[in-house]
Amino acid sequence: MMTIEGSHGSEPGNANGTIRMTKLLPTIKSPADLRKLDHGQLPLLAEEIRSRIIDVVGKNGGHLASNLGVVELTMALHYVFDFKYDRLLWDVGHQAYVHKLLTGRNERFDTLRKAGGISGFPNIDESEYDLFNVGHAGTAIPTAVGMARGASLMNETRRVVAVVGDASIFNGVAFEGLNQAGVLRRQLLIVLNDNSMGIAPTQGGMAEYLAKFRVSPVYEELKRGVKRYLPQVPLIGKAAFGALDHVKEALKATISPHQIFEQLGFVYVGPSDGHDVHHLIELMEALKDADHPILLHVHTQKGKGAEWATAEPTKFHSPKPFKVEGCRVEIQSGGRSYTAAFADALIRVAMEDKRVFALTAAMPDGTGLNKFQQVFPDRFLDGGIAESATVDIAAGMCKAGMRPVAAIYSTFLQRAFDQIFQEVTLQGLPVIFGLDRAGMVGGDGPVHHGFMDIAYLRALPRMVLMAPGDGEEIECALRLALTLDTACAIRYPRDSVPDSLYGKIAPPAFELGRSVLLREGADATILAYGAPCRAALDAAAALSAEGIETRVVNARFAKPIDREMVAEALSRGTPVITVEDHSVLGGFGSAVLEVAQELGLPTTQVILRGMPADDFVPHGPRASQLAQCGIDAAGIASAVREALDGAAGIVAGSAVLGTGITKIAG
Amino acid sequence: MMTIEGSHGSEPGNANGTIRMTKLLPTIKSPADLRKLDHGQLPLLAEEIRSRIIDVVGKNGGHLASNLGVVELTMALHYVFDFKYDRLLWDVGHQAYVHKLLTGRNERFDTLRKAGGISGFPNIDESEYDLFNVGHAGTAIPTAVGMARGASLMNETRRVVAVVGDASIFNGVAFEGLNQAGVLRRQLLIVLNDNSMGIAPTQGGMAEYLAKFRVSPVYEELKRGVKRYLPQVPLIGKAAFGALDHVKEALKATISPHQIFEQLGFVYVGPSDGHDVHHLIELMEALKDADHPILLHVHTQKGKGAEWATAEPTKFHSPKPFKVEGCRVEIQSGGRSYTAAFADALIRVAMEDKRVFALTAAMPDGTGLNKFQQVFPDRFLDGGIAESATVDIAAGMCKAGMRPVAAIYSTFLQRAFDQIFQEVTLQGLPVIFGLDRAGMVGGDGPVHHGFMDIAYLRALPRMVLMAPGDGEEIECALRLALTLDTACAIRYPRDSVPDSLYGKIAPPAFELGRSVLLREGADATILAYGAPCRAALDAAAALSAEGIETRVVNARFAKPIDREMVAEALSRGTPVITVEDHSVLGGFGSAVLEVAQELGLPTTQVILRGMPADDFVPHGPRASQLAQCGIDAAGIASAVREALDGAAGIVAGSAVLGTGITKIAG
Repeated sequence: MMTIEGSHGSEPGNANGTIRMTKLLPTIKSPADLRKLDHGQLPLLAEEIRSRIIDVVGKNGGHLASNLGVVELTMALHYVFDFKYDRLLWDVGHQAYVHKLLTGRNERFDTLRKAGGISGFPNIDESEYDLFNVGHAGTAIPTAVGMARGASLMNETRRVVAVVGDASIFNGVAFEGLNQAGVLRRQLLIVLNDNSMGIAPTQGGMAEYLAKFRVSPVYEELKRGVKRYLPQVPLIGKAAFGALDHVKEALKATISPHQIFEQLGFVYVGPSDGHDVHHLIELMEALKDADHPILLHVHTQKGKGAEWATAEPTKFHSPKPFKVEGCRVEIQSGGRSYTAAFADALIRVAMEDKRVFALTAAMPDGTGLNKFQQVFPDRFLDGGIAESATVDIAAGMCKAGMRPVAAIYSTFLQRAFDQIFQEVTLQGLPVIFGLDRAGMVGGDGPVHHGFMDIAYLRALPRMVLMAPGDGEEIECALRLALTLDTACAIRYPRDSVPDSLYGKIAPPAFELGRSVLLREGADATILAYGAPCRAALDAAAALSAEGIETRVVNARFAKPIDREMVAEALSRGTPVITVEDHSVLGGFGSAVLEVAQELGLPTTQVILRGMPADDFVPHGPRASQLAQCGIDAAGIASAVREALDGAAGIVAGSAVLGTGITKIAG
Repeated sequence: MMTIEGSHGSEPGNANGTIRMTKLLPTIKSPADLRKLDHGQLPLLAEEIRSRIIDVVGKNGGHLASNLGVVELTMALHYVFDFKYDRLLWDVGHQAYVHKLLTGRNERFDTLRKAGGISGFPNIDESEYDLFNVGHAGTAIPTAVGMARGASLMNETRRVVAVVGDASIFNGVAFEGLNQAGVLRRQLLIVLNDNSMGIAPTQGGMAEYLAKFRVSPVYEELKRGVKRYLPQVPLIGKAAFGALDHVKEALKATISPHQIFEQLGFVYVGPSDGHDVHHLIELMEALKDADHPILLHVHTQKGKGAEWATAEPTKFHSPKPFKVEGCRVEIQSGGRSYTAAFADALIRVAMEDKRVFALTAAMPDGTGLNKFQQVFPDRFLDGGIAESATVDIAAGMCKAGMRPVAAIYSTFLQRAFDQIFQEVTLQGLPVIFGLDRAGMVGGDGPVHHGFMDIAYLRALPRMVLMAPGDGEEIECALRLALTLDTACAIRYPRDSVPDSLYGKIAPPAFELGRSVLLREGADATILAYGAPCRAALDAAAALSAEGIETRVVNARFAKPIDREMVAEALSRGTPVITVEDHSVLGGFGSAVLEVAQELGLPTTQVILRGMPADDFVPHGPRASQLAQCGIDAAGIASAVREALDGAAGIVAGSAVLGTGITKIAG
């Protein structure tokens, strides 16, 4: 479990390349133990941490390259600050593995991303050192501003530190936070972890700007040896300042990418070598008692310590489980994904229609659009971690006559809700959204579940909402979308595509607001929206073996919903089960209820299946998450059986009625 | 109607202060007519435009100070560019009155903000010169980037111009757009309209940074006469460049706030006097054929041309109708608003609880919090036009032990949807949101209606949604909110508070998930959520006079909804009408339907009243908008009568069923 055989490409520089028998990491039960180590032991600990991460991520999958890049930085932070009292915020949070290993979670680290195990992101239920459950980018700075002001108002002297990547720091909300942070009249340390990468290479003008400094002679000089310096401004704790007087000279020759941050009111320090733990400790000691916001710019390398990861940081950003054999690394391959099916379909329609333009927000790999980019380099835009602006760019392009298709994860599209309202639907612009990772996402858990897109998009006038029932239907949905004169969203999960719903024949073309009957059956009806169609068919097959014949409908549309289909189902007098990989609040099932009310049809026989109303489904395998919500084949079959037993709706309902009045639910 | 008697404080500088008999404005049917004028006539036209705006806004209410500030800028833009082909985008859009007057809408301008009249914002149905219906800030730059890239892809040479205020340009989405704009390899002109104000004074580090340049000697010198200059970079159209060679010298002495924009890849020009129309025309002529993004920084004065407006630009940002009498200006006063009731209630609870902290996003006046700020200056934060960061700051404060209350308009809170998800509800933090302008907003129309907040907030686990039924209930709701351990939103409209629902007795305290029965009645039940309670009571009174006795429930909660109350209403076998000032999709009515389904109760007698599913309700008086949606007293009474006539639900439903299948609805 705790191999340190150095199967990962070991870099020199830590001096000690031999296998050691005494392990430091198991002795670190809390940051206090870290502070007991000699400085000389820290590089050895760094090596052990890297081994541990490579080992566990190799087995469980997870975020690799970003964590290997912040080993020394995280050690230095916990060495200098005491985050039992001081406050540490990780932006995005996928780079918090080292932090977890140093804050008492080494022993449980093998359970990373597993059900009931350690989360892949900071988690407030896991440790007092984790302050916010995060996963979306750009929020650490404004949150830190709030915590800093809050601490001051509570008359507490807690120091506040936020670690933010170079792709995140110019995200809209991060920038808004910087704009507020610079005017704080107290300590606040923002560490800019600059690895020149988000998940993909960082985008935009600021990226080009930071890149200039990466290749600047100053930084090269710094790497060669001038590793100790201090800002020239007299804002640093006096004691530290005196002690470090002798290094000030080294600083004088330095020019740096300071302007933008200084304009915002920060004292800028850097750029600094983020893999020199001694230097980082010295620097943070000097900075920690400042009475003014400081931006510390640190250069790190994604995948540091594993050559294969530094060579392909995007591939090793968040790999599936992998095996390292000498120089070869083999990543477990999954089945064909919905993502790949979407990307391939988009390429095919783009071949036929020159107006098709693909956009992503920092996820060219995650959305499969890297493939599209290779085929149509001029018809592709990566907007960076900036979903809001990316949607607006799409809206502008659409207005200009193009047919933009923006592929964005469901959970991240929440960032662009207002843009979809104002710049897209209020204009009647037919922008197409590909909502990847819609539904439960497995190991990433609550911070990434796409469980609200139907609810928040459904209220938008004239928005069309579709969900293909299998991989092949994605292309049908896209083809319909391209004929519409109104915005539309196509949702699909983070999953492998199932066997075709139609066997060997092609799926019927999508018609606006028309569902497809997949199977007849007299005893009950399942209305399945999107990916759960396959499970619904499987449930029907299992029920049939028991003598229960279930009708299965592939709803295809949540809006406009197929009213005829709803009317048909509700008029039969047999149970109707709606199934969606989404919250039961305001989703597809609610749309069915609304139509029923409008048509004056009874809903007493309807059962809604989806994510529970008031719980976040924890991380774990997607299959278990689906089972937990009762939207796998077994759960759907049970729902049908219960409904046929007659009592389900009313008895369960009464039970809730008796106890639920003052409970937060519904 | 077209008074130019100079009742507004006239500024010197336009030379001609006498009353002229020939009017220029009526001759401007399109920008082509503007271009026929001599340069010498332009200041006279500017004066007429100001008169016209003051006259119409004085009668109809509307955005005043911002429009008076952009008269010369707008004239110069239409003089130099041809926006029949070129593209002009207004950020926010409340400053587009001058643009409307110059693009054929002078004659209809008296109908500003009236039902069926000219919209207070750019409107694509009004004119080919209006490209986007906007009202929310920060979107023009990314939209312009999309239009610019789109035009290039369509092989069109359209020039693209975006006008953005200094408060908006550092909004998150604007900044994300700047980050993409700087790397464009084509013409793009961003005009930074810097008046040192958003609606309130601009906030944050960037505001302080821009302020430095406002008071710099360079700018003062510029105002004194060095009014012609060009950037030194060789990126400007060659012809223009040659012609203007002689002014380059003047530029050399200039230092400017260029860094941040140049870092983003722009060529920076400015700051320039935004009230010198000749200078602006010359400048834009020189810049219009650049093959690279340019940021033109222009200084303007909010309220220019009316001393009383320049003196109090916040008061005259968006006044109600007013009268100018000599030096005195009297603004029509409305009744006591929900906004004032909220602010007063917040002050009272803050007196008792030191943890209460108030936040707003650029709307200290609009949310009434300017009053709170006066009482508790240290417990107030204006986050600027940055709803996302403001919510995160609130989350951080809450985590630090404070009880933050963020008052943000419902429509603008859409910008922070993802932050409410991740930084607030996923942490279980009890941040309190005051959703001002929830429901229909009257003259501002679709860009500002708060019609989706219930739908998008309801899907968030453990979120509490309340709506006070009258002004006094706001304080009750706030007091309950402060006892909760979970996030909550309190919605209230842009309206005057009605007579108390309880006559002279105090409203009963709020209990989580408990409704209040306002009136008994055996024939039908009205479940009213929030402000429509008063109309529901009035409807019940009118119905009673006809012999129909209606039960009226003040629902108070959309989540957790009072399940006992819903069960009671649905079990009676009489019609149930849900009433909300919100979309019928996914709102309070849908929550009632969901509970009914869960409890196994019939919904065939339920009627949902709210904003129609697939239309944006146009601007006009709020009262008419409520009537249009059938949620005023008359509409609610009709709904009850129809329901009692028995046929309502089913007949209307069948009609829809027959025709609605391929229609976008539902």
